[in-house]
Amino acid sequence: MSDSFQDALAGLAAIVGDKHVIASRADQEPYVVDWRGRYRGRAVAVVKPGSTAEVASVVRYCADRRLAIVPQGGNTGMCGAATPDDHAGNVVIRLDRMRAVRDVSPLANTITVEAGCILAEVQNAARDVDRYFPLSLGAEGSCQIGGNISTNAGGTAVLRYGPTRDLVLGLEAVLPDGRIFNGLRALRKDNTGYALKQLFIGAEGTLGIVTAAVLKLFSPPRSSALALVKLQGVAQALEIMQRLRGVVGDRLGSLEIMSRSQIEAIAETVPHVTIPFELTTPWYLIVELTDTLAGVDLDEPLATALADAMEAGIAKDVILASNLAQVKAIWAVRHSVSEGNKRSGYVVSHDSVVPLERQADFVTNVEARIMAAVPHARVVMHGHIGDGNIHVIALIDHAHCQEPATTAALVAQINEIVDDETAAQGGAISAEHGIGITNRVRLARVADPLDIELMRGIKRLLDPSGLMNPGKIFGAGAA
Amino acid sequence: MSDSFQDALAGLAAIVGDKHVIASRADQEPYVVDWRGRYRGRAVAVVKPGSTAEVASVVRYCADRRLAIVPQGGNTGMCGAATPDDHAGNVVIRLDRMRAVRDVSPLANTITVEAGCILAEVQNAARDVDRYFPLSLGAEGSCQIGGNISTNAGGTAVLRYGPTRDLVLGLEAVLPDGRIFNGLRALRKDNTGYALKQLFIGAEGTLGIVTAAVLKLFSPPRSSALALVKLQGVAQALEIMQRLRGVVGDRLGSLEIMSRSQIEAIAETVPHVTIPFELTTPWYLIVELTDTLAGVDLDEPLATALADAMEAGIAKDVILASNLAQVKAIWAVRHSVSEGNKRSGYVVSHDSVVPLERQADFVTNVEARIMAAVPHARVVMHGHIGDGNIHVIALIDHAHCQEPATTAALVAQINEIVDDETAAQGGAISAEHGIGITNRVRLARVADPLDIELMRGIKRLLDPSGLMNPGKIFGAGAA
Repeated sequence: MSDSFQDALAGLAAIVGDKHVIASRADQEPYVVDWRGRYRGRAVAVVKPGSTAEVASVVRYCADRRLAIVPQGGNTGMCGAATPDDHAGNVVIRLDRMRAVRDVSPLANTITVEAGCILAEVQNAARDVDRYFPLSLGAEGSCQIGGNISTNAGGTAVLRYGPTRDLVLGLEAVLPDGRIFNGLRALRKDNTGYALKQLFIGAEGTLGIVTAAVLKLFSPPRSSALALVKLQGVAQALEIMQRLRGVVGDRLGSLEIMSRSQIEAIAETVPHVTIPFELTTPWYLIVELTDTLAGVDLDEPLATALADAMEAGIAKDVILASNLAQVKAIWAVRHSVSEGNKRSGYVVSHDSVVPLERQADFVTNVEARIMAAVPHARVVMHGHIGDGNIHVIALIDHAHCQEPATTAALVAQINEIVDDETAAQGGAISAEHGIGITNRVRLARVADPLDIELMRGIKRLLDPSGLMNPGKIFGAGAA
Repeated sequence: MSDSFQDALAGLAAIVGDKHVIASRADQEPYVVDWRGRYRGRAVAVVKPGSTAEVASVVRYCADRRLAIVPQGGNTGMCGAATPDDHAGNVVIRLDRMRAVRDVSPLANTITVEAGCILAEVQNAARDVDRYFPLSLGAEGSCQIGGNISTNAGGTAVLRYGPTRDLVLGLEAVLPDGRIFNGLRALRKDNTGYALKQLFIGAEGTLGIVTAAVLKLFSPPRSSALALVKLQGVAQALEIMQRLRGVVGDRLGSLEIMSRSQIEAIAETVPHVTIPFELTTPWYLIVELTDTLAGVDLDEPLATALADAMEAGIAKDVILASNLAQVKAIWAVRHSVSEGNKRSGYVVSHDSVVPLERQADFVTNVEARIMAAVPHARVVMHGHIGDGNIHVIALIDHAHCQEPATTAALVAQINEIVDDETAAQGGAISAEHGIGITNRVRLARVADPLDIELMRGIKRLLDPSGLMNPGKIFGAGAA
């Protein structure tokens, strides 16, 4: 290690304490590789500050020495946005020690948390005061709320509660020059100038490090009903959504869809998950209704609406969950999609969103185009009906992915197919996963050049040296 | 008029057509004065383009000639943000001719509208397809949706549906250099980079001109119940909110509060409004419950919860509206606050928002401090319980406001009191009205200098010449 790096380690240790600076390669391992093992980078140090002031000091220290900063949450992201690149001078900042729930107000329906809080901890802190924090996703046991905010995480409750952006009332962030943006206000309305906090939400740590936030809470769902519907396709799922809205209004909680091939991939590879229904149709829709009142009978309207849909030929079969075990068994399938896909081959994953009217065509076209171009691919899909967001995933047998160059070419080919079809349908290539490293070339290819110009302008404004999470969203040399 | 202004009129007429350029002082009158008559400016022309392309051409034309541009919606704003200053070279752009509802999708729950649409037209277009656009405010019969978006309008449905920002899925805007930002996508999720559209929402036309938007629709409320509650103060109103949440979950539609003095000001000055209840307590709370299902009995839980609140001494009296006429009569009082105040004296109006826990103290303190400093003021209040937003209004007898300088000093004195108390309670000086001309000095006084620096940076980035709605938010010379 160079002298200047030795100096940096000492300088960082002087700020956060020796034991919160990780310098050895072996100990850094969990932080320099993304959880899927796609990206591997290097770092002079992984630093764990204990307060916003320490984060600010670390950032200022790095800025003064032109060390690049990589903010990292729970390292559960889908696009490599929290993984350092392979320059040796990166400093990874983890907020694991900033995990306090600073305040919960059941009156104001707000919770104030530090960015290192695990999502499940936020959910639990809300539950403790009989409130509900709706953000819910597969990684909730290990992802951190700061990362959720920085990636504007989606998940299974967007249909009713919106993405993370809609759940953030206030936030605090350390800017690339070490100054602290203090927007940590528990205010439901604020029209005092430009919406600065919005810049940090979904910016993937390229404009600063989110250190704390005030989040919205809700009345908890106290009644619910769940069914699994077997059906022919996405068009039928949308028709069922329409019918349910007519019958239950805004009580639609989740509408999650999976293709038969998606469920088969899970059945074949995830031994601890049993598929609690027979696979007899091309698509499977999980319908969950919720009400914030206890004792509301949602089973009856759900059963009636779905029976009507069967009679009309829209649903092929309906399984109503009659107990909690059944509910859990059905959700277990949905929550195993990432694991099942990872075990089934090399995953070329997409996150397109299109207008709802285009969703059925999108799915049909994109599958046909991938299969025509890459006959050995296996296309599986799952997604969020009502959001317009379907994850199209091409699983490639590892035998076809031995050579990095071949794999890269294959991935690029499939990405272009999906992106072109997404553009043709008026959509966007990332609904909830973000850009990170994975999608920066794709974004540059499909985005309006004006959008990129404005984004680069904002990046330069906040981070003129380009040291804050370099190489993410824009690719290298953004600033 | 100077030759260059004559040239400009001809140039603008060449873009939009002769009859859509208003050059005469008399015809410009409705557009160069704000609706309250506080601000009067000048313009070389008021221009009414008929399309986004024409808006872009007009903006480019003005940018090339260094003519300042003032975007104006329905001219119903509270802070003068749409009124030109007194330089002669302003061009006011009105989108009255861009009034098309381009698309309504009951499937996707979206509506695509041009910015000149009157808010009530948007509401009606939604209603026509059995959907609901929740934005609702006093000026809905004349304000334009482009103005609502540019000011991030609030209103009486924020408690349940959020401010305008939360209702915008996509938008199109003409930038200060005449280029078109094309974010007009009907997508419920989009994580492809920075949230550019958020910049234009609430920017009061200082970063560009919103020309069209895709908005969220909802299932319409089909059941409702309304009551008027007489009570001692804001703390009791919050306690009732808490109790209602426990009983009806998320069915709380509106919680609007008025002080006795507020209602008296209406009773004294607005002859066509009758107060349908006796004034026997210091405060009055309108409670509206709504459900998206038809035939839901909300009267019974409302009556029970409020009877319990009376028994506990929290509510002093309760009037349940038993028919639509009663509902309308109660809402008529609330919708007359602006008119009543305007007729009662010179209005020094505030729009503070504070955390809910601080709302009762804020109200008590600010009233006491104003009365101590300005004994001849009459303090009236109305606001949105649950949002933390109470409008504190000092009405000054016109006899005390004869001299502009005296009036200005009095206003500044009252503003400082309210702003200091707002800051002391952790709040913001504008919840929903914005900054415009009225509040720019106040914002500069109370805002974090870092926030102002970032806002000015964004302004410079998008509008380096400072020609887009100059003098708003920041005061003159922002760019």
